[in-house]
Amino acid sequence: MTTNEIWNTIEAVRKENPLVHNITNFVVMNNSANALLAFGASPAMVHSSDEVEEFVRISKALVINIGTLYSEELASMKLAAQVAMSSGIPWVLDPVGVGATSFRKRAVSELLKFRPTVIRGNASEIISIAGDKMGAGKGVDSTESSDTALFAAHSLSENQQCAVAITGAIDYVVLGKHRISIHNGHPLMPQVTGLGCSLTAIVGACLAVDKDIQRATVAAVSYFGIAGEIAAEESRGPGTLQTKLLDALYSLDRETFLKRARIEKHD
Amino acid sequence: MTTNEIWNTIEAVRKENPLVHNITNFVVMNNSANALLAFGASPAMVHSSDEVEEFVRISKALVINIGTLYSEELASMKLAAQVAMSSGIPWVLDPVGVGATSFRKRAVSELLKFRPTVIRGNASEIISIAGDKMGAGKGVDSTESSDTALFAAHSLSENQQCAVAITGAIDYVVLGKHRISIHNGHPLMPQVTGLGCSLTAIVGACLAVDKDIQRATVAAVSYFGIAGEIAAEESRGPGTLQTKLLDALYSLDRETFLKRARIEKHD
Amino acid sequence: MTTNEIWNTIEAVRKENPLVHNITNFVVMNNSANALLAFGASPAMVHSSDEVEEFVRISKALVINIGTLYSEELASMKLAAQVAMSSGIPWVLDPVGVGATSFRKRAVSELLKFRPTVIRGNASEIISIAGDKMGAGKGVDSTESSDTALFAAHSLSENQQCAVAITGAIDYVVLGKHRISIHNGHPLMPQVTGLGCSLTAIVGACLAVDKDIQRATVAAVSYFGIAGEIAAEESRGPGTLQTKLLDALYSLDRETFLKRARIEKHD
Repeated sequence: MTTNEIWNTIEAVRKENPLVHNITNFVVMNNSANALLAFGASPAMVHSSDEVEEFVRISKALVINIGTLYSEELASMKLAAQVAMSSGIPWVLDPVGVGATSFRKRAVSELLKFRPTVIRGNASEIISIAGDKMGAGKGVDSTESSDTALFAAHSLSENQQCAVAITGAIDYVVLGKHRISIHNGHPLMPQVTGLGCSLTAIVGACLAVDKDIQRATVAAVSYFGIAGEIAAEESRGPGTLQTKLLDALYSLDRETFLKRARIEKHD
Repeated sequence: MTTNEIWNTIEAVRKENPLVHNITNFVVMNNSANALLAFGASPAMVHSSDEVEEFVRISKALVINIGTLYSEELASMKLAAQVAMSSGIPWVLDPVGVGATSFRKRAVSELLKFRPTVIRGNASEIISIAGDKMGAGKGVDSTESSDTALFAAHSLSENQQCAVAITGAIDYVVLGKHRISIHNGHPLMPQVTGLGCSLTAIVGACLAVDKDIQRATVAAVSYFGIAGEIAAEESRGPGTLQTKLLDALYSLDRETFLKRARIEKHD
Repeated sequence: MTTNEIWNTIEAVRKENPLVHNITNFVVMNNSANALLAFGASPAMVHSSDEVEEFVRISKALVINIGTLYSEELASMKLAAQVAMSSGIPWVLDPVGVGATSFRKRAVSELLKFRPTVIRGNASEIISIAGDKMGAGKGVDSTESSDTALFAAHSLSENQQCAVAITGAIDYVVLGKHRISIHNGHPLMPQVTGLGCSLTAIVGACLAVDKDIQRATVAAVSYFGIAGEIAAEESRGPGTLQTKLLDALYSLDRETFLKRARIEKHD
């Protein structure tokens, strides 16, 4: 997997403009839609059980994020994930704050039955899912660095037959025994709410155009990290970063991507 | 209808600061409220069936937007639209993504019974409502240019006895056989999510102060387009545009408006 | 209460990074989460009745805001407030638009039974709660200046045994017969939606680290006002202000705070 090949996935999103169906949380809906638009995809936020099954059928990928979960929404998520699984539409799960309450734990365990293509979370979330242990993290924030979740991620990837992305200071994309690390991003990024959720949405966009799920996930994670770096370098705080990140997602070009990408394979 | 008369409608909003009741989607609530504030109106986002009837009675206009529709919200919309119709309070319908699912199609058809004062949509949405044909558009984005929806808009306007605004590269405001085109705006605007929804809210603010519904709609569409142009000229991407659009909506003055407005009557 | 002591409360938030549980409205969720992050707290937006009781137990403070209230959410708020009260977790109530409808009036009256630690509102809201009179304000905006609510605030504070913050051109923090006025902030701030809601969230963060509830509230109100001043001085309109406010909340330092704070005690 060369950086050039990874860039081709980005290019494909820009060319194909895939429709990405999101059932996501209320905090990030606006940002996730804007991130997808800036990245070249066509976002839709559709959550009612009256229409999710119909909508996911016309979409190229599905993104499910439990950040502000409630029971009717969980029902919709299950309907949508079921259709995605049976129709071969790729889908990404963002298990926000899964360790914080038994409701989230149960919800994620039910959603895993529909075989997500990729799971994207912080270290506390990945450890919590893989290890079935409760209470990791502080609310929705991780208390662990990403490498502490590597064992959990490999185990989860093998059991679920999906890719797992752990994001943090270093990001990891794990598929079975394989692992790729991405060393982009900026320490100011966690000071903006929901950037992980925007990344999850962008993973969805990449899966919509690239069947190589590890490459698609690495494309999303590295592109997002580089856009975040560029935005943070021009920002005096998290407000400006949130704004400039959308600009960077929109305008990041091949040359800059190839120059900045710090992607390492560990096999 | 002179540009000066159109400006008077804008001025009236700034002077009267009308309360505009929105039942809108979760993606754009913050932006729509901010757009209304910047434009000089007093926004409220109130959607519970426990209070919409009471709230619409104290409002000067109602805005209904089905972007993230769910069944309880549809029930509230119908209650509010019923009160608006029977009390003579003007209301605008934004039929987001109506062609995408049968749930949206059915919802719009039910809402039309309460006689919206104005319908504001993209070409795919207007064609879909007027022609009763399903599946137009890609999700919530239009796949058609605005002029392809002109026949549909005239037909819809006559059948529904309402004004119809089609927005796109060129915007049209249609009332019966009459048509006005507005040639403002900027190609970067569709890269920000929900700007059409903000415009719909601003149409509501103009209807609150001007009984000439075609003029009120043209005022909103042209002002919004010009604010978007100014913001886009200063922006390097969609993040900055979203921020600067609110600044421009807040500070656009009469002189600049009169100089930039490109409004043509076609009778 | 010296300005230095007030600064210590801010410092404590930055050091302890308290988990603040918000059940808040859809308009401001993103901004409130970002304001809390920028201020140094760890925000969570959790509203389902399936998990609020469990979540509030792991939180250091609870924030309840009725801006886009609906009946299921009210049920969750009552569950969460009950746990907060019985577990000694401080909680803040933001009675958005309480005078506008009987549903909001009833909701606030039910929530008051769970003894909020602080109530934060504009003048119309505080008058409406204290005086049991309906219809004050225009929708969610105040029609009164903050000093007109002083009598109501003292009476509410004594009856409810809580602190009351009235925000407006001048802000007041009232506790029983005591009163502190804060003369910071900027006239552009009300042109951004939901800044009062962000402030309420920040009051929650201060209560999480400081048992002196009047000092905690004054710390939040003065810090927020100063950050708003700095942001507004650099802004050409409400869009930029919203962005720069987060930057200022993130970077405001002790020296600037001590220099700008205009806090007066009235006993």
